[in-house]
Amino acid sequence: MFFHVQRMINEIVADEPDPAAANALQEGLGGQFGEMRTMMQYLFQSFNFRGPTGKPFRDLLYGIGTEEIGHVELIATTIARLVDGSPRYQGSATDPLDTPGAGGANPLEMALSTGNIHHYLVGAQGALPVDAVGNPWSGSYVYNSGNLPLDLLYNLMLESTGRLQKCRIYEMTQNKTARSTVAYLIVRDQAHENAYAKALEALGVDWGKLLPIPKTNAEKFPEVKTLLDQGLQSKQYTFSLDQLSEAGRIFQGDSPSKDGTELTTEQAPVGVPYDIAAERPEEFGPGLDADLLALVQATAEMEMATAPGAWGPVSS
Amino acid sequence: MFFHVQRMINEIVADEPDPAAANALQEGLGGQFGEMRTMMQYLFQSFNFRGPTGKPFRDLLYGIGTEEIGHVELIATTIARLVDGSPRYQGSATDPLDTPGAGGANPLEMALSTGNIHHYLVGAQGALPVDAVGNPWSGSYVYNSGNLPLDLLYNLMLESTGRLQKCRIYEMTQNKTARSTVAYLIVRDQAHENAYAKALEALGVDWGKLLPIPKTNAEKFPEVKTLLDQGLQSKQYTFSLDQLSEAGRIFQGDSPSKDGTELTTEQAPVGVPYDIAAERPEEFGPGLDADLLALVQATAEMEMATAPGAWGPVSS
Amino acid sequence: MFFHVQRMINEIVADEPDPAAANALQEGLGGQFGEMRTMMQYLFQSFNFRGPTGKPFRDLLYGIGTEEIGHVELIATTIARLVDGSPRYQGSATDPLDTPGAGGANPLEMALSTGNIHHYLVGAQGALPVDAVGNPWSGSYVYNSGNLPLDLLYNLMLESTGRLQKCRIYEMTQNKTARSTVAYLIVRDQAHENAYAKALEALGVDWGKLLPIPKTNAEKFPEVKTLLDQGLQSKQYTFSLDQLSEAGRIFQGDSPSKDGTELTTEQAPVGVPYDIAAERPEEFGPGLDADLLALVQATAEMEMATAPGAWGPVSS
Amino acid sequence: MFFHVQRMINEIVADEPDPAAANALQEGLGGQFGEMRTMMQYLFQSFNFRGPTGKPFRDLLYGIGTEEIGHVELIATTIARLVDGSPRYQGSATDPLDTPGAGGANPLEMALSTGNIHHYLVGAQGALPVDAVGNPWSGSYVYNSGNLPLDLLYNLMLESTGRLQKCRIYEMTQNKTARSTVAYLIVRDQAHENAYAKALEALGVDWGKLLPIPKTNAEKFPEVKTLLDQGLQSKQYTFSLDQLSEAGRIFQGDSPSKDGTELTTEQAPVGVPYDIAAERPEEFGPGLDADLLALVQATAEMEMATAPGAWGPVSS
Amino acid sequence: MFFHVQRMINEIVADEPDPAAANALQEGLGGQFGEMRTMMQYLFQSFNFRGPTGKPFRDLLYGIGTEEIGHVELIATTIARLVDGSPRYQGSATDPLDTPGAGGANPLEMALSTGNIHHYLVGAQGALPVDAVGNPWSGSYVYNSGNLPLDLLYNLMLESTGRLQKCRIYEMTQNKTARSTVAYLIVRDQAHENAYAKALEALGVDWGKLLPIPKTNAEKFPEVKTLLDQGLQSKQYTFSLDQLSEAGRIFQGDSPSKDGTELTTEQAPVGVPYDIAAERPEEFGPGLDADLLALVQATAEMEMATAPGAWGPVSS
Amino acid sequence: MFFHVQRMINEIVADEPDPAAANALQEGLGGQFGEMRTMMQYLFQSFNFRGPTGKPFRDLLYGIGTEEIGHVELIATTIARLVDGSPRYQGSATDPLDTPGAGGANPLEMALSTGNIHHYLVGAQGALPVDAVGNPWSGSYVYNSGNLPLDLLYNLMLESTGRLQKCRIYEMTQNKTARSTVAYLIVRDQAHENAYAKALEALGVDWGKLLPIPKTNAEKFPEVKTLLDQGLQSKQYTFSLDQLSEAGRIFQGDSPSKDGTELTTEQAPVGVPYDIAAERPEEFGPGLDADLLALVQATAEMEMATAPGAWGPVSS
Repeated sequence: MFFHVQRMINEIVADEPDPAAANALQEGLGGQFGEMRTMMQYLFQSFNFRGPTGKPFRDLLYGIGTEEIGHVELIATTIARLVDGSPRYQGSATDPLDTPGAGGANPLEMALSTGNIHHYLVGAQGALPVDAVGNPWSGSYVYNSGNLPLDLLYNLMLESTGRLQKCRIYEMTQNKTARSTVAYLIVRDQAHENAYAKALEALGVDWGKLLPIPKTNAEKFPEVKTLLDQGLQSKQYTFSLDQLSEAGRIFQGDSPSKDGTELTTEQAPVGVPYDIAAERPEEFGPGLDADLLALVQATAEMEMATAPGAWGPVSS
Repeated sequence: MFFHVQRMINEIVADEPDPAAANALQEGLGGQFGEMRTMMQYLFQSFNFRGPTGKPFRDLLYGIGTEEIGHVELIATTIARLVDGSPRYQGSATDPLDTPGAGGANPLEMALSTGNIHHYLVGAQGALPVDAVGNPWSGSYVYNSGNLPLDLLYNLMLESTGRLQKCRIYEMTQNKTARSTVAYLIVRDQAHENAYAKALEALGVDWGKLLPIPKTNAEKFPEVKTLLDQGLQSKQYTFSLDQLSEAGRIFQGDSPSKDGTELTTEQAPVGVPYDIAAERPEEFGPGLDADLLALVQATAEMEMATAPGAWGPVSS
Repeated sequence: MFFHVQRMINEIVADEPDPAAANALQEGLGGQFGEMRTMMQYLFQSFNFRGPTGKPFRDLLYGIGTEEIGHVELIATTIARLVDGSPRYQGSATDPLDTPGAGGANPLEMALSTGNIHHYLVGAQGALPVDAVGNPWSGSYVYNSGNLPLDLLYNLMLESTGRLQKCRIYEMTQNKTARSTVAYLIVRDQAHENAYAKALEALGVDWGKLLPIPKTNAEKFPEVKTLLDQGLQSKQYTFSLDQLSEAGRIFQGDSPSKDGTELTTEQAPVGVPYDIAAERPEEFGPGLDADLLALVQATAEMEMATAPGAWGPVSS
Repeated sequence: MFFHVQRMINEIVADEPDPAAANALQEGLGGQFGEMRTMMQYLFQSFNFRGPTGKPFRDLLYGIGTEEIGHVELIATTIARLVDGSPRYQGSATDPLDTPGAGGANPLEMALSTGNIHHYLVGAQGALPVDAVGNPWSGSYVYNSGNLPLDLLYNLMLESTGRLQKCRIYEMTQNKTARSTVAYLIVRDQAHENAYAKALEALGVDWGKLLPIPKTNAEKFPEVKTLLDQGLQSKQYTFSLDQLSEAGRIFQGDSPSKDGTELTTEQAPVGVPYDIAAERPEEFGPGLDADLLALVQATAEMEMATAPGAWGPVSS
Repeated sequence: MFFHVQRMINEIVADEPDPAAANALQEGLGGQFGEMRTMMQYLFQSFNFRGPTGKPFRDLLYGIGTEEIGHVELIATTIARLVDGSPRYQGSATDPLDTPGAGGANPLEMALSTGNIHHYLVGAQGALPVDAVGNPWSGSYVYNSGNLPLDLLYNLMLESTGRLQKCRIYEMTQNKTARSTVAYLIVRDQAHENAYAKALEALGVDWGKLLPIPKTNAEKFPEVKTLLDQGLQSKQYTFSLDQLSEAGRIFQGDSPSKDGTELTTEQAPVGVPYDIAAERPEEFGPGLDADLLALVQATAEMEMATAPGAWGPVSS
Repeated sequence: MFFHVQRMINEIVADEPDPAAANALQEGLGGQFGEMRTMMQYLFQSFNFRGPTGKPFRDLLYGIGTEEIGHVELIATTIARLVDGSPRYQGSATDPLDTPGAGGANPLEMALSTGNIHHYLVGAQGALPVDAVGNPWSGSYVYNSGNLPLDLLYNLMLESTGRLQKCRIYEMTQNKTARSTVAYLIVRDQAHENAYAKALEALGVDWGKLLPIPKTNAEKFPEVKTLLDQGLQSKQYTFSLDQLSEAGRIFQGDSPSKDGTELTTEQAPVGVPYDIAAERPEEFGPGLDADLLALVQATAEMEMATAPGAWGPVSS
């Protein structure tokens, strides 16, 4: 069973809208090596896991898989911000044919020449479950051979490829909104790369100087360096509410990246609150005219019927 | 951000393996109207939501979306059990070419004539992210127009179609493992159908006698009737840890299914613990020989380095 | 602009349900060389046609394309009949869990082992826009190079391949419903093969003894022989209401199949009336309980508000 | 059976070529919510229809489905005009390497930076069966559950989404060719939205103020307003040649859009004649050199062998 | 540039036709981890290779990629034999409707219930570029990150997964034709696994006891054991005609599988001649009637105009 | 069995990088009518060939199929050169964030606005197995009906379509690297078109003046004219090492293109040596830092253990 809190796993820095950067980030969301894939791959490996003696491995998969749902949320929200409006445009709140202001173009006019017209035409300036050339995410991406060493090897390769692609995305754009999320995911991908590499060490592999991949250069990205200095590449977060996870038996000791750090497990981060995006009249989103809005308001004014109590840790 | 507990959202009743039933259930997992789709559709609608005045609607989407992750877990685990082994077969623990016992066929020999040979050949007798004819799940299924009335209408239709298909699956098999999960999802689909129908009532629609869809006959399925008698079709669960959800403002009052019940919101269910599946030597899963197993044991004997504290409710 | 009459282009002979034959026929409907493809390919070639001097070629494409819509209707309806119920089963009109009668199995129980479970699970025992292994029809099938000789060559090859596959389907089943439609389409495919071959003769090609493809053996199929004796392989039908088609300038003279016939153009066939299929309670189709049925009846009893006049030929 | 007349269902206003607008319109042709989908979905629902008492519903589906074939023709032809050449370019009739004129670029040189290079490379400056990001149309789009209320709900949602997307396309371009067709389809989508909404009213639903979707703003588009003033959003056309359609039993009474109009049924529109597009030497389309052209001319000079009579209404 | 000899890379043992086994083998041909994928992945990695100092790595990729083309030939030919006819059936040479003999069923009648009806309906009892559930091979399978360590890691995982799946296929069937090819590919996959593992050893990795994957059990398959005893898992073949390959610099020394063998490089195997398959009248394959056959014979009787000389090694 | 030499089948002329031209060429590599398709189609037709009397036809297919592997190599390498870097950019060898020089843009910054961002983001400035709008190559492209006349007709149409598209690509770009390869393939496509046309002449067809397609204009492209003057459109190369090919029995006599040439068979061309591409630090390709490079060097310094002898012609 899964739970949710209304907090983003990392802060999304504000900057101008940038649909080209948003489109590059789609690879990190819906691409073959993006967050939807890591999330689904680890969850399927968890659901289908075999071998009771391997519980620490399964718990590691479940834990990282759960974190990845939050990464999907983070990168989707980042993309939504990047395609929300266009630089310096202030449209009318009621007229979808509104002439754009002096300093910017109407987003729908820009749509014809951006990376993915669907951001404006099919969605309403939000994220899509597709990659950077518009291919929809596919279940055929999920790898789950049921052979533990192979699943771990693939996961290691998957995290490294995700990190490689995100380093390339970082270089493609100067936009701070894009870079803040990309840098965070670069470092967390490295943490997960370490996790799978360590799990393979438990099966006897010595990685020598191979890790991390790519290496030596990502620290030159300032946002990445800040997070590396905080040691985020060597932390495993606990998103397990019931203290039953044994993932920490694997994620401990020297980092297989041989950067001199120790692997440690921690509570989930506190997270960052975030706002609901504004309406977009040119997209008919959400599409409530005065009458419908009045009906919604009426609903909002009713007493809130529910009073859910706290949901603390469960003892099995 | 998302969290996990090691409990299944509903109990999976034990019965014989049944790969044909498992394959029918794949439609409910990876089909166009299955749980992976509801989960992803509601989450994307939540991430991209527009209009601060619509917070109760967004929270409803987030809440149901989070429950659906647990449904994906439930139906995937159910499928994994249904394709795990074959009726009455007791294979050797070490020989993948083992001659099957008197009462059953080796699962890999059966694989050539089952619904989806990939259950045995690509996976290791586990669930796959595909539908009942083997089409991989696709991101193109996700509908998120950004227009609130349309998104709600689609969601209502999606839940009703999911329920229609599960009623058909129920009729296709007598297997108790399959029916226990299918019956549960039939009733929860109805609860979500009610949620979206109610949200549209808030925008002025009166459904007359149209709901639920399909109608009148599903109560003839005994497992469904038991759950309807418990009122599960009229409950919204809270999977929100931080008490910030305003979904209850919508999900209240008379059920739009006009079955005489009141809609109410409740804590998430306590859930059911479950075991890790056994090894399958014929699948080389997990694939650890004596040497590798010894390495894993060595790891397991290390002290568990982590001591994660409780993760209670967050105040914003 | 297109028009419709409530008549099938050819009679569908009655026989037992036969889901395996139905599935083979899906190739002829939604396969890469099936009727949906011929219809769409010729219509796109018509819409995008270049070169005013080539009007007879365009009109030939428009004419065959329009006939193909009726072929899609014919083969889809044939498939729907073949998956409607199971041999000798008489189910209850109200109970989807009804125990099957002595002489037949409940269709939904059979669904697990038929060619395409979607016929019962996603559709309600009806035709699907997919091929015989379940691949959805794809727009990537449509070939329209804009180069007239190439488009004609491809169309010739397309018709011949369609005919080849239908001859193979004929051999796969004894079912009379399936064979009546397959035999008709074999002969009409040959007529269209002749049309494109003749059009290429107008560009200078002499086919020698190559056509038709496949050859010599299809006449051994009795239903095919009957239609060949009627000369249906050498007739072009006019589905053009406005007498503006110049297709007859091409489709005339000796048949390129060199079977001794003349190519001639005729009025569209009169067609055959057909019934609406019965309800299927186990599919919840159409799904109207007593209340909803009463509402529909009320609608049906209203005066029919429309009195459309005749739609005769238009003069340009 | 289906018929054709050589007239476009609505006039396509002339303007400059505009490949970017053409590409946006591809969503309306081959997109998930475009005209190919509505056409195929309603035709499949008609072919597979169950329940003789529901004949008016089936006839409504058949009628709208037939109109949609004409919409496919309209929007495909519009796209073909929009990608035919480039602004102010006058190429040589014989040389594909011709230097472009002073005022415009050679279309093939532009192809590298337009929305879909396939318009020039795979097709010959014509429409393609794909969406605005190049995904081929897929049979998996067709929804046909066999449950009448669900099929009607989906169809309502489908028309509304199509209309929503076309309103967005309208805002994306100033091109008059594009806008004339988009505006027409916006209003006809609304008519079909009304048809399905009315059919659901026959099953007891009261839509309140929800329809049409999107609302309030589309009338600000001048071309749309003109058509709304003519009442095209409240008319059902009869494309049935045999007077057997009972669709008018449903499509009557007050509009569910509550705009004060009555729903009425009418003869099909007279339509608009149109020309065959010119040759494009740079595309080798149609590709006839002097010799081949002479052969075609020879064919054209032959007597037209056919003299098809009028095809009037059929009495069943 | 590539060359061909008319010899199969390994012998295909004769046995009865077996369409179910053939279908399982399709995974090894056109599946996500089959031979078409290894071939294409290594060739693309070769074409796009970067870094002149890495020539031995590139040559290794080119060499294995070239061998894989021969593997595609081997497994496709094996499948073609397995679907050629049905057990004990002797059909007439001229009549496609021929009644099957006493001991076997007509292959086309069997087609309705075999793994992939396309083997009989779309192809003419031959191999298809699809996997075991009918998904067409996709270019999206090809992994080529351009980062050498990652490409090598993926290739290692790819070979191991291919070997895992082939071990499962071996267990699924007793057919000797199928097993002879599967066993050969199991051992060659292991050789390639060793090649990529050794290449990673050159980058510092020590694999401990992890390889080969899967382990310990495949030697229990008798055909596999025979080949292992010959040391085929530790040989790299040279398919390079010009002696420029430096692959042997990597493929040498102790096997990373730690089975006590040395890695060695050898000439390509001599190969095995093979016959052209017989005609199949029920498939209209090749489809030559008496007239066409006479034309072909006439061609065959002409003098062979070519006299190609020997093509020996090239000196650069 | 297949072999390789380290020589390109034709010279690739040097010019500036040009990602837009590269993307157009992708259609010729991974498009529906590109070289991967011709290669795979002819190889599958060879593997599945039926009818021992047809050996010259099969050998023709095998021969052209083998040449096509070399064409895939040629066009992939051409694309890789065209996306390698950006005009006049000289980046730092070690810093992926390096500021571009005065004369050119950093390739990764350009990536956001090029034809296919995957060239930079998923690959490392290399070719991809996709078409010009990013669709992955699909096994569903392969046509192999098993009916010889149909397979030959399709192959003729396939080569002509490939040639048509390449003529359009030629017109789209001035880049010499692109044009040198495109021109070569235009002429070789014509040779293969002639081969299949001649094979159909052996079955009795007389093509009149239809071929080649497209016609009359391609000779106006200077690079094409040079090759036509050398007669490359009328030569069949022998890539068969064992002198067993009987393809020359078909490919002889007057060209079916009726250009006055004789068809002749020749040895494979000698080919052109080529260099390995340089490293790209901004892509982390190949990704070896100082440590890893030292390890590779150590490997390179070992004695080359292999001494492969010459691989001459085999006598059967």
